[in-house]
Amino acid sequence: MVNVSGTPLLDGVDTPEDLRRLKPEQLRQLSDELRAEMISAVGTTGGHLGSGLGVVELTVALHYVFDTPGDKLIWDVGHQAYPHKILTGRRDRIRTLRQGGGLSGFTKRSESKYDPFGAAHSSTSISAALGFAIANKLNNKPGKAIAVIGDGAMSAGMAYEAMNNAEGAGNRLIVILNDNDMSIAPPVGGLSAYLARMVSSSEYLGLRNLAKKLAAKISHRVHNAAQKAEEYARGMATGGTLFEELGFYYVGPIDGHNLEHLIPVLENVRDSEQGPILVHVVTKKGKGYGPAEAAADKYHGVQKFDVVSGVQAKAPPGPPQYQNVFGETLAKLAETDDRICAITAAMPSGTGVDKFARAHPERTFDVGIAEQHAVTFAAGLAAQGMRPFCAIYSTFLQRAYDQVVHDVAIQNLPVRFAIDRAGLVGADGATHAGSFDVTYLATLPNFVVMAAADEAELVHMTKTCVEHDSGPIAVRYPRGNGTGVALPEVPQVLEIGKGRVVREGKSVAILSLGTRLAEALKAADTLDAKGLSTTVADLRFAKPLDEALIRRLLTSHEVAVTIEENSVGGLGAHVLTLASDEGLIDGGLKLRTLRLPDKFQDHAAPDTQYAEAGLDAAAIVETVLKALRHNSAGIEAGARA
Amino acid sequence: MVNVSGTPLLDGVDTPEDLRRLKPEQLRQLSDELRAEMISAVGTTGGHLGSGLGVVELTVALHYVFDTPGDKLIWDVGHQAYPHKILTGRRDRIRTLRQGGGLSGFTKRSESKYDPFGAAHSSTSISAALGFAIANKLNNKPGKAIAVIGDGAMSAGMAYEAMNNAEGAGNRLIVILNDNDMSIAPPVGGLSAYLARMVSSSEYLGLRNLAKKLAAKISHRVHNAAQKAEEYARGMATGGTLFEELGFYYVGPIDGHNLEHLIPVLENVRDSEQGPILVHVVTKKGKGYGPAEAAADKYHGVQKFDVVSGVQAKAPPGPPQYQNVFGETLAKLAETDDRICAITAAMPSGTGVDKFARAHPERTFDVGIAEQHAVTFAAGLAAQGMRPFCAIYSTFLQRAYDQVVHDVAIQNLPVRFAIDRAGLVGADGATHAGSFDVTYLATLPNFVVMAAADEAELVHMTKTCVEHDSGPIAVRYPRGNGTGVALPEVPQVLEIGKGRVVREGKSVAILSLGTRLAEALKAADTLDAKGLSTTVADLRFAKPLDEALIRRLLTSHEVAVTIEENSVGGLGAHVLTLASDEGLIDGGLKLRTLRLPDKFQDHAAPDTQYAEAGLDAAAIVETVLKALRHNSAGIEAGARA
Repeated sequence: MVNVSGTPLLDGVDTPEDLRRLKPEQLRQLSDELRAEMISAVGTTGGHLGSGLGVVELTVALHYVFDTPGDKLIWDVGHQAYPHKILTGRRDRIRTLRQGGGLSGFTKRSESKYDPFGAAHSSTSISAALGFAIANKLNNKPGKAIAVIGDGAMSAGMAYEAMNNAEGAGNRLIVILNDNDMSIAPPVGGLSAYLARMVSSSEYLGLRNLAKKLAAKISHRVHNAAQKAEEYARGMATGGTLFEELGFYYVGPIDGHNLEHLIPVLENVRDSEQGPILVHVVTKKGKGYGPAEAAADKYHGVQKFDVVSGVQAKAPPGPPQYQNVFGETLAKLAETDDRICAITAAMPSGTGVDKFARAHPERTFDVGIAEQHAVTFAAGLAAQGMRPFCAIYSTFLQRAYDQVVHDVAIQNLPVRFAIDRAGLVGADGATHAGSFDVTYLATLPNFVVMAAADEAELVHMTKTCVEHDSGPIAVRYPRGNGTGVALPEVPQVLEIGKGRVVREGKSVAILSLGTRLAEALKAADTLDAKGLSTTVADLRFAKPLDEALIRRLLTSHEVAVTIEENSVGGLGAHVLTLASDEGLIDGGLKLRTLRLPDKFQDHAAPDTQYAEAGLDAAAIVETVLKALRHNSAGIEAGARA
Repeated sequence: MVNVSGTPLLDGVDTPEDLRRLKPEQLRQLSDELRAEMISAVGTTGGHLGSGLGVVELTVALHYVFDTPGDKLIWDVGHQAYPHKILTGRRDRIRTLRQGGGLSGFTKRSESKYDPFGAAHSSTSISAALGFAIANKLNNKPGKAIAVIGDGAMSAGMAYEAMNNAEGAGNRLIVILNDNDMSIAPPVGGLSAYLARMVSSSEYLGLRNLAKKLAAKISHRVHNAAQKAEEYARGMATGGTLFEELGFYYVGPIDGHNLEHLIPVLENVRDSEQGPILVHVVTKKGKGYGPAEAAADKYHGVQKFDVVSGVQAKAPPGPPQYQNVFGETLAKLAETDDRICAITAAMPSGTGVDKFARAHPERTFDVGIAEQHAVTFAAGLAAQGMRPFCAIYSTFLQRAYDQVVHDVAIQNLPVRFAIDRAGLVGADGATHAGSFDVTYLATLPNFVVMAAADEAELVHMTKTCVEHDSGPIAVRYPRGNGTGVALPEVPQVLEIGKGRVVREGKSVAILSLGTRLAEALKAADTLDAKGLSTTVADLRFAKPLDEALIRRLLTSHEVAVTIEENSVGGLGAHVLTLASDEGLIDGGLKLRTLRLPDKFQDHAAPDTQYAEAGLDAAAIVETVLKALRHNSAGIEAGARA
């Protein structure tokens, strides 16, 4: 527990300019105050805690040494940027974090000039920083670009691509590798093992004045053979060569909580003629807050909590989360099917794959933040007869779109996609919304695309995926809790491309895909109370469509409305295309498509977001009534009166 | 020039089983025969030549040493697999390469059991091979997986992700790094410099019996400290540590044209208890064919040519290629605009960026095969006030979809996308078709999506991109030559979201996006000759739609047809959605959408492909006439008679 009485120094720091007026010896206390303030704020709001606690000193040091916002400080992912927000004029709103209308839980350009590049997905910071650095170089402008990237994010290919291209930036580019040996889950892969060896090397453990030593070295770096040999020797001891071979000057590892090490090294790095430079900083996630340090996940993401005890507010008891229904169902099915494998890209808990892993560790593959590899690896497994499930959030599957197209769809390989966080996601906001997957998957030949209306449907669809060996298949489902329906004892294999009628009526048809079904049923009650008679169908499949069912519903009802948790180009577009292909629209068809709006929606409670999006029961009712009033000349009945 | 009289050995080799019956001393001659056969075949068909010539010996050695198809041999990209095709039962069809109905120019699962994983996009092979290896491991089956990947492909993040995850495969996974220091264009980036240093090291240059030395080493590898020190020492000399730090055992560099080196090393690698292993093989693109060796591009992709002289058939003179119109226009515009930058991902010539580079080298960025980085780097440039153009083929932009969404669209940054190879692409087939970009881009908020109807339009649209600073904008255009229209002296800025009426009629409206406009005009002639009166509009924008124009055309014509070189979910879907949103369909609307079919089309001449797709003038006419016959009950007039 941080023991601070009041925040006298922090109270005087509204911006980094204020910070830079402090004396170096005051920065320790400022860091303690900043840490205390952050813990207090997140105790109120919930959010990402562990990552921010790990970079308190680093944040202070970076703003102290560099001339932000002229120098561009780019936080990879952005969830560790709460201390940065507090120091950059946003302390007054820090207790609105992740609340509707409040501060974003990530960096965001529209929020502050100190956020030059927003993030939320990982591993983008080096590419972006390089863009800033090169733009300055082309324009002969001063200004460094500093990317702060975690070791987990380094496992993504994109970071490697950026490093491979960094040389041209020279000393305008600085990459801070924030090595806390833990992104969200324990680290995986060769890179992680490599970093661990570096940090456990005797040089790192033994030297107390590493900072001075490195600082001395860096100022007179010459690229001659002798120097090169010396660099290799250093590489042997601390392993720096991987980054050096990609063209970086490597400095580290450095204790990221020791300001007396950090400040002089960063000053030297700032003033170096050589570059690009990679500074390897070792930090501790959750640092300085006992309950976080003690927790297995270092309080990566937390509910509101009591600051003294660290006890988090319990989520109200409710139906199981979709992710866990998926993970447990798959684990069960795998008991009698040796071919089932599960793949996650650094999200074992978020995807429910942890449940599978507990039962079938040898068939579980956490590939790190590497969605591209995850998908093509799964394609290889499928080609050799396995039944692989890629469990990836909708928004992160975008990272592997080409692999989905090129390696899976074109080859028609039976890779199963369990797409969590489909639709709007609440506090994480636009960057994490799963708004496009129906569109970008259903346009692909060979693909089967399902959406679960509730957790029981998810059980059946998971089973359906298992048994579908003839090509790729995806099931999407939202973030959060199910609806509370009873889970089936025996999962059923659904017929591909067949929907179900949940409620039969005569005048209005609602064609639903996914969990908007509950709102569709509510809307049906309202409509029927107004004297209409409403059919509600759960189409289950965006592809292939249940053409017979859709044909019947469109032609036997006065008005039809599709609804989906996806943007334009998805279910509604496919239903309209069918109606057009078959000439069903020729004679007049009151068909409307409800979908996500053509804008990126800010974070807010999911219900609020869906109301804003016009995808709740009220919006369905309004759409139906408006369509009914609409006459065949395209004018609302009564509008001329 | 390979000097071979006849192919007596090759004549006896129909499959790798036959090959493995030869004596090692016969493999040199077999390789020479194979090389001659390949040159002869590609002389007839055109296609990829240089890459295949570079791996003749490697192909022979791999099939000789490994037990294909039980062992899985996976060629990255696949365009170097012509010798492999000749040795795996496809010699009788090798002169049908890339012809409609003939062999694919890439590896393809449906073509042969010796193609375990198809490719055409780069850098997928290690992930796929790992899938095969792990599946075998899980099933306790024998069988290695061998990925052959070029140094250019190694620059893609996906390859790095795969290497970072390879450790679990153990000795079942072998990666052959085919280092020819040149993918399609000269190599770029830190990795390339690194490999060059390895290959130029004294150890590689000085040792004649490297193979034996390495072979001895590999068989008794032990992971103790002394060994580790020895490995580092080796790394110092040859630089192998980058791969070793990612968990590979590194062997090399080895002369890839010397069978006496290759065979024993591969045998040792095959029998090694340790793994995964990376074998660094150095080859020469175009090897053994004088004209190819002498050419700057090593005959990467060629037209038909005369085998003796190497002289390629000249493409018939014709209008300029779209790619060059783009490159030259942008170069011209950049003369008076310092903010314009051009970015290519290893395709300077294919994208026309080479034209820009000649005039503005300091503002040209070839990032290697690294589309993800390309896009976010561009976003960084845009955020710092530049006007960056990402020139990327439609199919390769899929690799950067998340960066397009997360870094560009959500932040509404003015990155310009010049999307070449939109639509069907002929001989390269389904893997290279640009079939989905309208769908996957137009679903994104903030995006402007244009398609050029001809090369003059491309000039205007390039200018329009330059001036559009308020958000992301894309222009798509096809592979190949323009239509021959005069190029405008002064490029015009088009009004965003405004189409143009090319031909005004009364009863039929054709709403075209992109270069199908020519077919639309042909169809209009045919329809008018049948007594109809046809309007043809070039919508120019898939997003935002020209709503006023579309509204007018739909409501003032008896039949309307949209046409686009894109799959479902694109222009047609957006027009239908507009018509539905506004209730235009309520009173009956004969609206049809022509689009690419819901299948991956095989390679063939583009005109043939578009006829198959139902996107030529005849198909437009047929669609219009059928719609006109269709009565309001959804039944074709006369159908009941």
